[in-house]
Amino acid sequence: MTFRHVGIVGLGLLGGSLALDVRRLFPDVAVTGVARRAETLATAAGLQVDGAPVFTALATELTALAQADLVVLCTPVQTIIAQLPALAGVLAPGAVVTDVGSTKRAILNAAATALPATVAFIGGHPMAGSDRKGLAHAKPGLYRGATWGLCIPAGQEAAAERLRAFVTALGAHPLVIDPDEHDAIVALSSHLPHVAAAALTNVTLGSKIADELLPFIAGGFRDGTRVAAADPAMWRDICLTNRDHLGVALRQLIDELATWRDAIRAGDAAHLEALLTTAAHRREGLNR
Amino acid sequence: MTFRHVGIVGLGLLGGSLALDVRRLFPDVAVTGVARRAETLATAAGLQVDGAPVFTALATELTALAQADLVVLCTPVQTIIAQLPALAGVLAPGAVVTDVGSTKRAILNAAATALPATVAFIGGHPMAGSDRKGLAHAKPGLYRGATWGLCIPAGQEAAAERLRAFVTALGAHPLVIDPDEHDAIVALSSHLPHVAAAALTNVTLGSKIADELLPFIAGGFRDGTRVAAADPAMWRDICLTNRDHLGVALRQLIDELATWRDAIRAGDAAHLEALLTTAAHRREGLNR
Repeated sequence: MTFRHVGIVGLGLLGGSLALDVRRLFPDVAVTGVARRAETLATAAGLQVDGAPVFTALATELTALAQADLVVLCTPVQTIIAQLPALAGVLAPGAVVTDVGSTKRAILNAAATALPATVAFIGGHPMAGSDRKGLAHAKPGLYRGATWGLCIPAGQEAAAERLRAFVTALGAHPLVIDPDEHDAIVALSSHLPHVAAAALTNVTLGSKIADELLPFIAGGFRDGTRVAAADPAMWRDICLTNRDHLGVALRQLIDELATWRDAIRAGDAAHLEALLTTAAHRREGLNR
Repeated sequence: MTFRHVGIVGLGLLGGSLALDVRRLFPDVAVTGVARRAETLATAAGLQVDGAPVFTALATELTALAQADLVVLCTPVQTIIAQLPALAGVLAPGAVVTDVGSTKRAILNAAATALPATVAFIGGHPMAGSDRKGLAHAKPGLYRGATWGLCIPAGQEAAAERLRAFVTALGAHPLVIDPDEHDAIVALSSHLPHVAAAALTNVTLGSKIADELLPFIAGGFRDGTRVAAADPAMWRDICLTNRDHLGVALRQLIDELATWRDAIRAGDAAHLEALLTTAAHRREGLNR
């Protein structure tokens, strides 16, 4: 571990779990937490790992990060973008900044403009999360086994190597990826599933027969819409910073659903069975 | 328990689990199982509860059910409809027939035509199931706590009362419902979620970047598409016997997704946050 002082901005599920892991894995490293709400800071002050406080320091302002040599931004994407200029005036030369946001192009573009050349920025995206939001649900080991996407701007290879070692220590699998490729991929693998779950929730539970249908809700709907309960502000920012790729993905899903609807309306058993069989084979492949 | 001999047709997850429960709860009741495939019958012959064989008899033909006073049809919906005329020539007067199919109008219409007046038919739909199909995944207690919809034709109240007691003994909650109302409800609570999960699977895993996106698949996609791995033949029949209600539900989902797409394309943060917040509140309500 080449970092001696980790600053974590945003103490929700991701930031809080990261803090628990740093304290657990690196007892000698200082951990400064920054959060806006007094209630969050009070909860954070009580967090312990093996009897030791998780946070060395807690603050509401980014100025508390002047000594940090690694800063991990765990706020919603648009908040990350807004915080970068303020961070620029605080950090010491040589500091490494990264983030855990679900879109990468907007953040990397903002970092390139906002941060001085003396500070390295590497974009990051751990594929971990939950419908459970907030510090109360933070847990050690959240990142174990997860892919952790890393977007490395030209000239930042040394900082990236240090960050890669850090991510590996958490049990995650670092995967270097181009920001645009990343955003196109997660539009299909994460953002489209979220929008589909939320839209399905609004159709079914917003129906005028919603009260009557509650006893007839089974596992398929519960599993299929679980993520729809996640933080709206976080997902608003994700959607807005991936408008082009997510727009294309949504067009594809709408077209696919129209194909299903046509087959069902027409009573086309062979076409319908082909669509269902393709889906079943593809989904079973993910279980293997 | 007023039934002395239960016939179960179709030994998949639902039929197999039902057989296990009947043997567990009513050791003196005869249980005849009917299945098409020799492999299924061989597995069924080996099933035991507390050291006792689950099935009293096993057969490939419905003629084995001549002594049964309760027959539960656990095959796909179109198979149930095809089996009713054959059953008519087999059953003794006073027998009660029911089913566990996910749509009810087509089955009740078919039963009214196919079965003699000496046999009672009650439509049934337990809200239990899984993406795991087949007898190998059958388990006792599958129906515990599940709503079990019952569609009772005029004049069948006495048979319905016996069936209600049977269902209650399994730990399920019987709920009497009109067949058309049932089909409209499950179109939204079960069939639309299934089609949405399968369509999403086909878009994401059928994408030309499917290989690259596999490391970036997280819990939201896995949970959201789990049901897509279920039996295609079963779901083909469900979709085809609920074309009108499912068609309307699909139109609603397509319209909802188009609304999301327009808000995302336009970068309308307020509208998008409102859509996400509505979904989160509605989905959280289901967790309480």
